[in-house]
Amino acid sequence: MKTALVPGSFDPITAGHVDIIKRAATLFDHVVVAVLTNSKKQPLFSTVERKELIRTSLEGVENVSVEAFDGLLMDIAKQKDAVAIVKGLRSVTDFEYEAAMSSMNQAIDPSIQTVFLQTDPALSFVSSSIVKEVAKYEALPENLVPPHVADALRAKFADK
Amino acid sequence: MKTALVPGSFDPITAGHVDIIKRAATLFDHVVVAVLTNSKKQPLFSTVERKELIRTSLEGVENVSVEAFDGLLMDIAKQKDAVAIVKGLRSVTDFEYEAAMSSMNQAIDPSIQTVFLQTDPALSFVSSSIVKEVAKYEALPENLVPPHVADALRAKFADK
Amino acid sequence: MKTALVPGSFDPITAGHVDIIKRAATLFDHVVVAVLTNSKKQPLFSTVERKELIRTSLEGVENVSVEAFDGLLMDIAKQKDAVAIVKGLRSVTDFEYEAAMSSMNQAIDPSIQTVFLQTDPALSFVSSSIVKEVAKYEALPENLVPPHVADALRAKFADK
Amino acid sequence: MKTALVPGSFDPITAGHVDIIKRAATLFDHVVVAVLTNSKKQPLFSTVERKELIRTSLEGVENVSVEAFDGLLMDIAKQKDAVAIVKGLRSVTDFEYEAAMSSMNQAIDPSIQTVFLQTDPALSFVSSSIVKEVAKYEALPENLVPPHVADALRAKFADK
Amino acid sequence: MKTALVPGSFDPITAGHVDIIKRAATLFDHVVVAVLTNSKKQPLFSTVERKELIRTSLEGVENVSVEAFDGLLMDIAKQKDAVAIVKGLRSVTDFEYEAAMSSMNQAIDPSIQTVFLQTDPALSFVSSSIVKEVAKYEALPENLVPPHVADALRAKFADK
Amino acid sequence: MKTALVPGSFDPITAGHVDIIKRAATLFDHVVVAVLTNSKKQPLFSTVERKELIRTSLEGVENVSVEAFDGLLMDIAKQKDAVAIVKGLRSVTDFEYEAAMSSMNQAIDPSIQTVFLQTDPALSFVSSSIVKEVAKYEALPENLVPPHVADALRAKFADK
Repeated sequence: MKTALVPGSFDPITAGHVDIIKRAATLFDHVVVAVLTNSKKQPLFSTVERKELIRTSLEGVENVSVEAFDGLLMDIAKQKDAVAIVKGLRSVTDFEYEAAMSSMNQAIDPSIQTVFLQTDPALSFVSSSIVKEVAKYEALPENLVPPHVADALRAKFADK
Repeated sequence: MKTALVPGSFDPITAGHVDIIKRAATLFDHVVVAVLTNSKKQPLFSTVERKELIRTSLEGVENVSVEAFDGLLMDIAKQKDAVAIVKGLRSVTDFEYEAAMSSMNQAIDPSIQTVFLQTDPALSFVSSSIVKEVAKYEALPENLVPPHVADALRAKFADK
Repeated sequence: MKTALVPGSFDPITAGHVDIIKRAATLFDHVVVAVLTNSKKQPLFSTVERKELIRTSLEGVENVSVEAFDGLLMDIAKQKDAVAIVKGLRSVTDFEYEAAMSSMNQAIDPSIQTVFLQTDPALSFVSSSIVKEVAKYEALPENLVPPHVADALRAKFADK
Repeated sequence: MKTALVPGSFDPITAGHVDIIKRAATLFDHVVVAVLTNSKKQPLFSTVERKELIRTSLEGVENVSVEAFDGLLMDIAKQKDAVAIVKGLRSVTDFEYEAAMSSMNQAIDPSIQTVFLQTDPALSFVSSSIVKEVAKYEALPENLVPPHVADALRAKFADK
Repeated sequence: MKTALVPGSFDPITAGHVDIIKRAATLFDHVVVAVLTNSKKQPLFSTVERKELIRTSLEGVENVSVEAFDGLLMDIAKQKDAVAIVKGLRSVTDFEYEAAMSSMNQAIDPSIQTVFLQTDPALSFVSSSIVKEVAKYEALPENLVPPHVADALRAKFADK
Repeated sequence: MKTALVPGSFDPITAGHVDIIKRAATLFDHVVVAVLTNSKKQPLFSTVERKELIRTSLEGVENVSVEAFDGLLMDIAKQKDAVAIVKGLRSVTDFEYEAAMSSMNQAIDPSIQTVFLQTDPALSFVSSSIVKEVAKYEALPENLVPPHVADALRAKFADK
């Protein structure tokens, strides 16, 4: 059985993330969505909220699980016995950063591959941060995040 | 069983290609190296020679086969029942071209994913064309192609 | 009255071109679609066919005209009394090439501006050449060109 | 009448900004220079100072006005009834960031276009931040900012 | 006698830096490694430690000296009577940033050239920050920094 | 004595080339401008004409010589006992291509360095091919090539 890891902050999950995870699930027997909690940035959504938003987004996808992790990505990958780390690529800037990370991870453990999928071009401009920036002004267009994530963003900013 | 296609002209196979194919073979149950024969450019090596150079390069890798194809890449992928097309990425220029092809292929058949692997950075400057250019002047450095490919290049240019 | 030029080979017009021309038509009083006929490449469609395919694509857009030109782009712009040349940008590679052309055109005549519009991201991978490549194999996905252009491509390749 | 918005922090206005605004003024009937005041960074110049430095830089350009704004760019554009937002592009990195913003803004309101002009290549390395960095060491070369902006920078750093 | 400056934070020196400095030492009569101390970021290693780690890395290279500096790079270059500033280029993102700095430095003093050397491709993903990030988790692969730097990193993180 | 090679087709020399060669001449004791004659493209100017146009452009620069070469660049560099090959960088696309060539040349002979200089930004869009393209239409702006090269272009196209 081949397992792949899809790591990220997912603060919150976007339609671009959902697309990448679903496509990864057609390539590997099992996919672990790894919610990384060691970012220096203060997240908008708590780890529990982020995991819940991801789970709801992936309802009906059988071979996916969602877990939170702290620590070095390659240690997590080894712990889950993953053969691959899956990352979405949106742009040249993404590519250069991810290529450097991929090379470092290969140097740390050559038995685990970083696998890149091209983001759906219609969603190439969508990131968690741009989504939060626009949602703050109640201007979030439809289809950039799943409907329940749009609701969660609305609720979060209404609180503020 | 999950099959992946690694397409290319392989005129000739380089150490970068070998690395990508071997890593693809750890991710999928079966890998088909697809030698594309419909390029407009006149190849240096015949289809038969190119297949033979690839086979020798991959000796000992159990789950790989080598076949020549003519036609649309997505038709070949469907014919082989592949879930993925695997491409190596060396540079930003590669990425932009391959990203456009990947998007087009997704539009043609969303059930087949294009999967990118980052080329070994030590081989990021190696391409079949630069290898041929330098081999012509008998200046090919070691380790950029497998030894039997270096021999084949030497023989080919000695003929000319 | 401010006139803009949208130059290109349009061999054939794609959905990306249509989007750029329609958006240009909201910015300027009059838009001239300039079909350039001095390319070194042999076109698939004749100048007359290309103009006709463009005209049909733009039916209902009042302030657009279609003309064929031969010669230096800046001479055409001056002849049409244009204040701007409008170009779509799909990618970084596009940008670098178009930026160099824009700088040269500014040096030739600083009174005419090159104006860039970002291509609809969902169409960022669409070009006339990729469309022809795929149409040749009868694999063209829907919505990448207007329906009558898809028909014209089909007829053209059936002839061959 | 067609209005365009040229948004930015303008902390302070550079020769590159002046060039973009003047060229925008040849393309549209009216240009609003929109000084954005909601940046997270502490500006060197106050909003009043920034507006004044812009106004002096644009003396003699009839169809330009300068206003300060807080809030979402697309809300400001709608409020001013603008058909276009004009941005200067200096580099590939600029392009990727601005392309993502342009796509998001199109998704928010498809009736307002983001229009890119290529920065004068002789000024392609000039930004407000690099200008401030160098002015701090009294090393600012001539012609990168208008003379009165150079004076204002000198006065500002003499105070510190 | 021609002197060149190799500036950087060197927090700590990597195998990529060592390669660039040694190659610079074949091009110029004297090379000054300039440890810049005016970064806004809190360094992991003190200026004294950074200089010592560099010196040990360059043992046996005759025409190199190591000095710490504060202030504008071009002032340091003039003070050392340097004809060139040498920078390593790893990636497109590096190139765009360094090209802008190089143009600004040419504008400040056209008699001092910024000279770029391509980083050894096998080390193209190595930076001081990625090295520190990975060393923190005791996962630093061999050969990315000189052995005594690996020891120093281990000691530094053991303290924490 | 340190010698550097500035290779190119120089068909014809542009103001950008002149700037790079003059700056190289401040860095090295001797500079050999190497006119490469093995391009597949048919040149506009003969080898003799190209050498003459270069020599006139560099009048007054003492430590520069001009020679024509055929063959592998690294063989020429060894023959001239050069420590460096100097290349101008205009754009990201240039950089990626030149970085690959630089890595290959390092692999062939690690004792010869490829040294990059950033093209004068005001000339970043100038290339021999764009200059010829525009000169053909008698539209060449001033200052992009030395005056005697502009004359030579005019004479060449008048002949045609």
